[in-house]
Amino acid sequence: MKINVEKCAQILKEKDNILILTHAHPDGDTVGSGFALCLALKKLGKKARVICADEFMDKYTRLIDGCLDMPEFEEQFIVSVDVATENLLGSLADKYSGKIDMCIDHHGTNTDFAKYLLLNADAAAACEIVLKVIKTMGVKIDKPIANALFIGITTDTGCFRYASTTSNTYRAAAELIDLGADNGTINRVMFETKTKTYAALERLALERMEFFDKERICIITITQDMYAETGSSEQETDAIAPLTRQTEGVEIGLTIREKTDGTCKCSVRTLDSVNAAEFAGAFGGGGHKQAAACRFDCGVEEAKKMLVAKASEMLK
Amino acid sequence: MKINVEKCAQILKEKDNILILTHAHPDGDTVGSGFALCLALKKLGKKARVICADEFMDKYTRLIDGCLDMPEFEEQFIVSVDVATENLLGSLADKYSGKIDMCIDHHGTNTDFAKYLLLNADAAAACEIVLKVIKTMGVKIDKPIANALFIGITTDTGCFRYASTTSNTYRAAAELIDLGADNGTINRVMFETKTKTYAALERLALERMEFFDKERICIITITQDMYAETGSSEQETDAIAPLTRQTEGVEIGLTIREKTDGTCKCSVRTLDSVNAAEFAGAFGGGGHKQAAACRFDCGVEEAKKMLVAKASEMLK
Repeated sequence: MKINVEKCAQILKEKDNILILTHAHPDGDTVGSGFALCLALKKLGKKARVICADEFMDKYTRLIDGCLDMPEFEEQFIVSVDVATENLLGSLADKYSGKIDMCIDHHGTNTDFAKYLLLNADAAAACEIVLKVIKTMGVKIDKPIANALFIGITTDTGCFRYASTTSNTYRAAAELIDLGADNGTINRVMFETKTKTYAALERLALERMEFFDKERICIITITQDMYAETGSSEQETDAIAPLTRQTEGVEIGLTIREKTDGTCKCSVRTLDSVNAAEFAGAFGGGGHKQAAACRFDCGVEEAKKMLVAKASEMLK
Repeated sequence: MKINVEKCAQILKEKDNILILTHAHPDGDTVGSGFALCLALKKLGKKARVICADEFMDKYTRLIDGCLDMPEFEEQFIVSVDVATENLLGSLADKYSGKIDMCIDHHGTNTDFAKYLLLNADAAAACEIVLKVIKTMGVKIDKPIANALFIGITTDTGCFRYASTTSNTYRAAAELIDLGADNGTINRVMFETKTKTYAALERLALERMEFFDKERICIITITQDMYAETGSSEQETDAIAPLTRQTEGVEIGLTIREKTDGTCKCSVRTLDSVNAAEFAGAFGGGGHKQAAACRFDCGVEEAKKMLVAKASEMLK
């Protein structure tokens, strides 16, 4: 059942022992949404906990005071945040598929898998929606909550850069700064600071960048060998995908990342001329108009062939 | 005489035939401030014109409809925008030094050279101040003016990334988007799109990046040879300076650019621990707490030695 912000806030206020699910390979928006909601529910005297199939990265959690202080309890209500389809829960999907009570999301491709769905595809980040829910629940937003929400908004918009960013996004950011969000520090940590290992990986990736179809398609491939060579890891690769779309003339940017089991996944970035969600959808994935992702059961070379063929077809 | 926004708007409304000066090597903020103010004055039925010692880059002017349509007239009132000291006017300094009636600026280092000074060092961009002046003059902001102001705000904050960005900055951005600013396009053009020549220059710059003092100082040197090798030019180098501060552990990032006459200039980027304006000030330059610049009469190698020595001293 589709619900609005008021209904969502009302339902959450009536519940307790709330388990919050984030998507696998967690990004700033799912982490920020999850912890902001969790901290807000705890301020209402409720028990709440955030879980994920993968580990939460320290660069997010250390900016949200007290977020990892989570009680154990038997869940009575399950909420997913920034999760478009149940399979994006990763290894949590087995246990929780079909059991999710509420979904708060901003992906137009959301499959409506929960009992209650609060969806706003115009929001640049799920955190924009969670901000409204928290305010509607009457919770006073403090610095940790403001930081969590700011992290989600800034990371999902590439630091307010992407076309998905609206005046509401900027207004939400202003509000969060006034409520204590450390925008300077957060943006520096998320966007300005490269670890030495990541800097090495990025240089290698740029050196091996490939162009196809009159340089309208750009592909970066990250292999396990490259992690070994640079000391980097998949956890550090979020900043790679936007690089594929940066060279003048490129309309489709693809980042193929090899997994430890030899299969791979692909991040898709596009200009206005190509719908990234539609592109990724052709391979069973999904996402937004200009940023999407999909997975492959095959190796990187085979995936690359299929991706280039599909990209060329879409550019015709 | 220091004036406030109201007084500034009142004076401008009383004047006509207004010449607007921007600083040499024009960036988005001086260009955006200049053209926004000019277009607003023209909407009040006045004659106004923007000039610069150097050429306005097409990437700015093509996003501001009608900005280059400027009448000739004999100036009766001279305003400088985003100009901290008269020598930053470049070759225009000879003609206009001592003759500037009004200065609208956001540099704490402003030398108070004009008859009237509207200064707000808390503004992340001069365009934030110009926005207020235009509104106070009662001009209805249209899309070209909104685009001009958005260009200045986003470029001077590194797309809302730098610590100088405040909640007022985000609010100004939201307001400008609602007034028609093409934020998605502007941010893509300013930050997402690299020309092929710039991409080549950046790669070369990263390859030759040097570290000093336990990697707390990072230096990129751009020589005339590197422009020749890549087909790039000084006009394309604005995005280089932030790269020096990105690697973990770096506290002072310096970009030395060789000029055609063999002398050079240096862009300074710092973390909180070092005041960039103070650093640049030691070499006769100036700027902000975390971003500043200075010029040298010597070649790059000699300048580099002096810069490293000063940087090491400041890190002690």
